[in-house]
Amino acid sequence: MSEMFVPPRAVVAPPARIGAPLDSVVTPSLVIDLDAFERNIAAMTRAVAGTGVALRPHAKMHKCVHIARLQMAAGAVGVCCQKVSEAEILVKGGITDVLVSNEIVGAEKLKRLALLARNATIGVCIDESAGVDELATASAQADVRMNCLVEIDVGGERCGVIDTDEAVRIADAIAGHGSLRFAGIQAYNGASQHIADPTARRETSLRVADTVRRTVEALSRAGLPCETVTGAGTGTFQAALDSGVFTEVQPGSYLFMDRSYGEIGRDAGETFDHALFVLTTVMSTASPDRAVVDAGHKATSIDSGMPGVWDRPTITYERPSDEHGVLVGERLPRRGERILLVPGHCDPTVNLHDWLVGVRGLHSDVAAVEAVWAVDARGALF
Amino acid sequence: MSEMFVPPRAVVAPPARIGAPLDSVVTPSLVIDLDAFERNIAAMTRAVAGTGVALRPHAKMHKCVHIARLQMAAGAVGVCCQKVSEAEILVKGGITDVLVSNEIVGAEKLKRLALLARNATIGVCIDESAGVDELATASAQADVRMNCLVEIDVGGERCGVIDTDEAVRIADAIAGHGSLRFAGIQAYNGASQHIADPTARRETSLRVADTVRRTVEALSRAGLPCETVTGAGTGTFQAALDSGVFTEVQPGSYLFMDRSYGEIGRDAGETFDHALFVLTTVMSTASPDRAVVDAGHKATSIDSGMPGVWDRPTITYERPSDEHGVLVGERLPRRGERILLVPGHCDPTVNLHDWLVGVRGLHSDVAAVEAVWAVDARGALF
Repeated sequence: MSEMFVPPRAVVAPPARIGAPLDSVVTPSLVIDLDAFERNIAAMTRAVAGTGVALRPHAKMHKCVHIARLQMAAGAVGVCCQKVSEAEILVKGGITDVLVSNEIVGAEKLKRLALLARNATIGVCIDESAGVDELATASAQADVRMNCLVEIDVGGERCGVIDTDEAVRIADAIAGHGSLRFAGIQAYNGASQHIADPTARRETSLRVADTVRRTVEALSRAGLPCETVTGAGTGTFQAALDSGVFTEVQPGSYLFMDRSYGEIGRDAGETFDHALFVLTTVMSTASPDRAVVDAGHKATSIDSGMPGVWDRPTITYERPSDEHGVLVGERLPRRGERILLVPGHCDPTVNLHDWLVGVRGLHSDVAAVEAVWAVDARGALF
Repeated sequence: MSEMFVPPRAVVAPPARIGAPLDSVVTPSLVIDLDAFERNIAAMTRAVAGTGVALRPHAKMHKCVHIARLQMAAGAVGVCCQKVSEAEILVKGGITDVLVSNEIVGAEKLKRLALLARNATIGVCIDESAGVDELATASAQADVRMNCLVEIDVGGERCGVIDTDEAVRIADAIAGHGSLRFAGIQAYNGASQHIADPTARRETSLRVADTVRRTVEALSRAGLPCETVTGAGTGTFQAALDSGVFTEVQPGSYLFMDRSYGEIGRDAGETFDHALFVLTTVMSTASPDRAVVDAGHKATSIDSGMPGVWDRPTITYERPSDEHGVLVGERLPRRGERILLVPGHCDPTVNLHDWLVGVRGLHSDVAAVEAVWAVDARGALF
């Protein structure tokens, strides 16, 4: 069964035509409430305005070049992503400042990353001395100077340096290479984003800020000033703005929101609306105690719990399988009826789809498709 | 932000070159052990040989035209899928007999499905009388005659007719339309596939077979003979072969296997090997108590539990986030080391990737890429 060539990759056609009514959108598909989406962009611009802290939204969430451009137009200094292949797609799409807020290991990937730095400002994280030389080699061979940020563990217990002295040693090693530029610190605690109580969440953020401050001071004493201190997400960006130590925040989910973020208590003044939905159709009411819809966990991620059912408080979604979900409760919808689900977690849900369908007036009688955007970096895993 | 056109969809380049060593495959990516894969194809061909029961493997699992062709060459009468867009890709790829083992609702999708029947034998399921007329209209307008199977609920509590009289009424309505052909029964119980104890699993299958037999007999008494009785999966196909009532089986996962199927007790004589792996790289060992890998739940599905770690009994994978997983245990791998994960559930894991990398001699020192296949129907959700 040897193959002598790589076959072309089929591309699934979009589920909607621009100008068509919402009723014509093929299901299951991802629908963006453009009114809520635009409010969310504007709300984040207002939140950072006058703080002196830069906004670098996380493009790992939407994976869409067009949306990254809209964020830049609304004042972002650049975007973040997690993978070299995402950065390649963003730079190709005209984004001129991309931080890979993640460690990149191996000569092949680092070569690709360094080549991007010929046409854009590229940053990358590092959390082990062992990685500095291969970063420097890749940068030197591409004849570029990459920005390197030392990632510190601020409670996420994933990547990141734990010991402050080790952070200083890594920064010093970076600064010793002519092809690298020590740019500062990456500090993100994923676990603290979803703490429901705003006060408890803010206390976690204060502890994060303390760790960051101690590291910044230690680096400064070693003659290694941090130009950039970047981190925080949708749950903690306000605390980071207030901390006096972060120079940059990296929220992503605020743009679309999801059931998980919708359920946490917000900081004062924050108003982000649900803009992301999975549009699904009831495909079976053969049993009177359930309505089966055409969106299962290939259409809506369940890593952060089940999707919510929009504007149907008597109904819940349960028992997802690959291509089916089961609605139960009172006043179940009819066969053929269309339902909006609120995904449990936006990032991995968007990653399941090839297209985002932008709808104007989503919750009105004249809901119509205004935009169809590609999820350009969907499947950009490496 | 109105868009006047639909932008092209980027396609992520394959993570491997044919002929290259395994060490050069970019991670995270899906790797197929071609030796195990070929043994699994042959084992299923042997299992059905001489039984008089047809094999119709489920292509929803692999979503790959090339693999569907290999299954046809190994004796399959056709394949199953769940979505019209999957059927479109399979028929375009030369598969001439496709059963959509699922209900399809709405004029737009039924029109697309009926058009496929001009070039292939197309079957579709139905579980409500309300759906018969729109099926007949779509078939008539396309000038085709679609095969219709009445889906019955055999314990899955998802789609499917519950009442035998209702099944007869639907079949009768199908038979009354000149553009439709009543072809028989679809009977699949997803929940019973993963019952660990083979004896308990077989008892469930016997109950399924009893329900099916009663329905077949009722239809026969009504002058509606079932040419096709189709269903069963990797956990229950042997019981279906032995039942005397199924004419066709629909296993899918046997081809790749996954951690979930690997953990159930097999029926006598069955030998399916793990052929599907997520190849991942250790990207951080900054903390001595963990090794962070570059495959999170955007690379390996967690709906059926965590992935296993191949050939590393002292290590477990835990706490997946979007782009990271955490390995813990004794004798943790080094930074840059490559690990094979065994996905918890093959279907949704394959759906996360654009490419399958076929490797010969995967577990040997001379492991090399022999094939790169597109996951053609990845994201074919509608």
